[in-house]
Amino acid sequence: QKAGRLFSGLLAMNVVFLGSAFISSMIFNHVAITLADVWILLSILKVLCLCWLIYYLLGTSRQPHAVLYRDSHAGPIWIRGSVLLFGSFSILLNVFQIGYSAILIQCKSRVEIVFPSIEILFICTQAFFLWHHSKDCVQVQHNFTRCGLMLTIATNLLLWLLAVTNDTIHVEMESQLREVEQRLSGKAPFSHPCLSNDTTSCTCPNTTLCKVFQKGYILLYPFNTEFCLVCCSVLYVMWKNVGRRISHHHVPHIKPKFKLQGVVFGPLLGVIAIISGICVFMVYQVQATGSTASRQVFVMYYSYYVVLLPLMSMGAVIGTIIHALEKRELDTLKNPTRSLDAILLMGAALGQIGMSYFSIVAIVATDPRDLLNSLILSQSVLLIFQNITQNVFIIDGLHRQPFVAATEARHTGHAGQHAVASELPGEEETTTSSKQEHTPMPPGKEEEMKEEEIREAHDQRSVSMLELGQEIRKVSISYIQSYSHLSWKRRVLREISFFLVLCNIILWVMPTFGAHPVFENGLEKSFYGYSTWFAIVNFGLPLAVFYRMHSVGGLLEVYVTA
Amino acid sequence: QKAGRLFSGLLAMNVVFLGSAFISSMIFNHVAITLADVWILLSILKVLCLCWLIYYLLGTSRQPHAVLYRDSHAGPIWIRGSVLLFGSFSILLNVFQIGYSAILIQCKSRVEIVFPSIEILFICTQAFFLWHHSKDCVQVQHNFTRCGLMLTIATNLLLWLLAVTNDTIHVEMESQLREVEQRLSGKAPFSHPCLSNDTTSCTCPNTTLCKVFQKGYILLYPFNTEFCLVCCSVLYVMWKNVGRRISHHHVPHIKPKFKLQGVVFGPLLGVIAIISGICVFMVYQVQATGSTASRQVFVMYYSYYVVLLPLMSMGAVIGTIIHALEKRELDTLKNPTRSLDAILLMGAALGQIGMSYFSIVAIVATDPRDLLNSLILSQSVLLIFQNITQNVFIIDGLHRQPFVAATEARHTGHAGQHAVASELPGEEETTTSSKQEHTPMPPGKEEEMKEEEIREAHDQRSVSMLELGQEIRKVSISYIQSYSHLSWKRRVLREISFFLVLCNIILWVMPTFGAHPVFENGLEKSFYGYSTWFAIVNFGLPLAVFYRMHSVGGLLEVYVTA
Repeated sequence: QKAGRLFSGLLAMNVVFLGSAFISSMIFNHVAITLADVWILLSILKVLCLCWLIYYLLGTSRQPHAVLYRDSHAGPIWIRGSVLLFGSFSILLNVFQIGYSAILIQCKSRVEIVFPSIEILFICTQAFFLWHHSKDCVQVQHNFTRCGLMLTIATNLLLWLLAVTNDTIHVEMESQLREVEQRLSGKAPFSHPCLSNDTTSCTCPNTTLCKVFQKGYILLYPFNTEFCLVCCSVLYVMWKNVGRRISHHHVPHIKPKFKLQGVVFGPLLGVIAIISGICVFMVYQVQATGSTASRQVFVMYYSYYVVLLPLMSMGAVIGTIIHALEKRELDTLKNPTRSLDAILLMGAALGQIGMSYFSIVAIVATDPRDLLNSLILSQSVLLIFQNITQNVFIIDGLHRQPFVAATEARHTGHAGQHAVASELPGEEETTTSSKQEHTPMPPGKEEEMKEEEIREAHDQRSVSMLELGQEIRKVSISYIQSYSHLSWKRRVLREISFFLVLCNIILWVMPTFGAHPVFENGLEKSFYGYSTWFAIVNFGLPLAVFYRMHSVGGLLEVYVTA
Repeated sequence: QKAGRLFSGLLAMNVVFLGSAFISSMIFNHVAITLADVWILLSILKVLCLCWLIYYLLGTSRQPHAVLYRDSHAGPIWIRGSVLLFGSFSILLNVFQIGYSAILIQCKSRVEIVFPSIEILFICTQAFFLWHHSKDCVQVQHNFTRCGLMLTIATNLLLWLLAVTNDTIHVEMESQLREVEQRLSGKAPFSHPCLSNDTTSCTCPNTTLCKVFQKGYILLYPFNTEFCLVCCSVLYVMWKNVGRRISHHHVPHIKPKFKLQGVVFGPLLGVIAIISGICVFMVYQVQATGSTASRQVFVMYYSYYVVLLPLMSMGAVIGTIIHALEKRELDTLKNPTRSLDAILLMGAALGQIGMSYFSIVAIVATDPRDLLNSLILSQSVLLIFQNITQNVFIIDGLHRQPFVAATEARHTGHAGQHAVASELPGEEETTTSSKQEHTPMPPGKEEEMKEEEIREAHDQRSVSMLELGQEIRKVSISYIQSYSHLSWKRRVLREISFFLVLCNIILWVMPTFGAHPVFENGLEKSFYGYSTWFAIVNFGLPLAVFYRMHSVGGLLEVYVTA
């Protein structure tokens, strides 16, 4: 097992390094290595991944005993939903690109239609694969599956890297263009380097269709980067789950459903935050994309942050305190999904925190008493604080047993001691689950049915009826007691997490769709120099955006389990 | 426990980010933030660390029951030895700096004598602390100790960062100076930015002492960076060990001693490699520091690598195969030192591998058929291959049970099943070990005595005498059998690892003391552009150097346990 992991990891590492060297070469030496070279490399990788994906779908997963266990924590519905959502936007993006290239076919090469087609195929297959198989714990062809998964992860990472560097080139161009006072205002924002190289010779004819393709391309671009990262995280969990055997004690807690009942203030405050955020964003975008970005618009933008962030931090702190008060049992079972979530949250927060510290040093060293500067300073400090408190709150929340399951788990815990001898998976389960694999199944319902089946079988075998009755009585009493006692705490937790979800959504939307005041205010840019600050933002901003998206997911889980 | 770890980790993260922002600001904006500001920040951190270190030495560690357990894997002798070695060189470095500043006192401020003095104090205390306490598993004041350790780690990391950026500034200056055709050849290589700013106004008077200080400073500089990294790794293991309870089953394997007997070819080949390496290095340094670095010297340098690297890779591959053949039991116990070793090896190798891939892309895109270029290309490919095979070999080797202990462990494993009930630490051990903590002890001997004591006590309690006799007979028979059978394998493993140790030493020495052909050959520099390639080397080279040093340690351990 170790050897397989090591080997597949090394494979991925080499692919990623080779690809990043290619991409960097393209950025720093346009002549020797062109975007077309990079696209060829990536297309080869995509085709390899496609072959493996199709082989997995048709071959590996249909073998007898291939998928005996399914990790109930892996690929929760919100992750798979965002895979589908971002995937479909990415497909749309590629369709736009094909359309754009087709209109300008006289000055573009044919390959610019071929590459997006491969991309579309890759996205479709991958989304299908992740929707149906993200919970699999594969038991056959371990090493081959590991290598395939790692290759797909590496390809996605490279696509992300290319998209990010492209995106930043976009920012760079925009700001440079603005500096030339928009003499070329007709064709300003289109960003694809290969296309924008060409725009000098072939501009978009003034048809509506062409404009729609251009605008849509720019608008949909951020979703593509998110899609790659989300796929990476799901694939990584699958990779960790290859060959894993899950003892059936872990399975049986009923997943709590998402309900909106009982929360009032959270949604209310959150909606207010979103609406005012959208207003600020609109005003900012209109003003900032105009030729002169005035001071006032920055003051407004940063004031919004300075008001919102303390509320969010306070919410997270109160939530953490309530977590501590509740003294609910911690879920300490092995769970790759959760560890990855925690690592991703921490890692992605580093991007924002790093940028904030750079801002702080720059401002303190120049002039912290200016109004705008003091606003930026407090925003930076608050961002750090907010990121940290929110991370603590989410990670704390993820490690707690879901409420209903808490009592349940105590019960199965008792039962487990009696059942140690009969722990190995019985034959009934093997057949039911492998049978279930043969028919491509509608994901939601059958899974739950299967889980219940397993639980029933387990209970029947392991606990004698008498004990079971006693346990149930005990459990139900403690349930009622704790429910009446914890009621207000649970409600507050739900209010807080709902509020935080909405706030994170608006904080995700603003930088995703183009508000980059950290670049446009010019303060840090003049302090660190253009290219340095550009590199810092280049590293930090995509991570910050990913962080917001990922914490929405984490907070939803906290909300549901509260 | 989780909370304490999280909190101390966050503390360290914030300190590191603040410090790196400071250091970057200094690099990119010399005016607003000077080196003096950074030194003030670092001195504050050092003083804080000093306070904690002294408090730990005098307070925490002397409390009753403070150190009940000691992790026998942590802080092996070669690590502690290198702490002492690099520490003393670093002290010497600071003495030189003080001396230099004292000579030029008329044009320097007093603080340039104060800062190195604090540094000396910090290094001394830290080295003393690590020598005596690196094995501690602290059981009191968990959170305070964790924060102290993390603060010290953060400070060391920042010192390393400053040293690395300084070191690269050194390289940059040297190469820029060479480009100006050495008009200023009298005062060329001195590198400290703060000093080199001043050298325009105050040059070193032509006394021998001043020259010695200059040269010594340049020569000793690399040791300082290594010292910081080694301290970080030891401190990290201590941090992981805070609050850890080690069940006494894990302790009793006798540490195999380092013996030179029975190896011939490894040392022989290794010494040949070292001698020829030193010759190549000398010629290279003489030629390359001259005004015209000729092609021939690069050809010679790269040829040396192209000859040596395949030998090393072959050795590592053969070693890995022998490991697989031997089927020795794997040591799967929890062991923070070993996991850190594996991570550090993998992480540090990334620096070298990244650089190599960038070289490969640059060469393939320009002209791979040229003699020098094809040499660089093959060197890069071979370096990647060598790094990976060596990592696999070392990590494989670290996970095997030491030879003597393998049989021993099987024996205690049997015994362990009988002894589960009496596993918790008895009172005798508590008192003996805490007694031992009160007297500051000479490290080597008493530790071994203690381990034996514990083992004896454990054996007496847990295994009845009759069983013990049978076990011993069985063990000794299997020992003799396996020894006669494995003899040639073990010898080959020792030959290989000794050879690799010597090779890694020479590959460590060459870049450490100034041979940077990757920068001086000009190929990648012209391909990627000066500043980009500079940043890549800046990231990769210190890691590559650290990798060589760290693999020497790992290989020594493989040698000893083979």
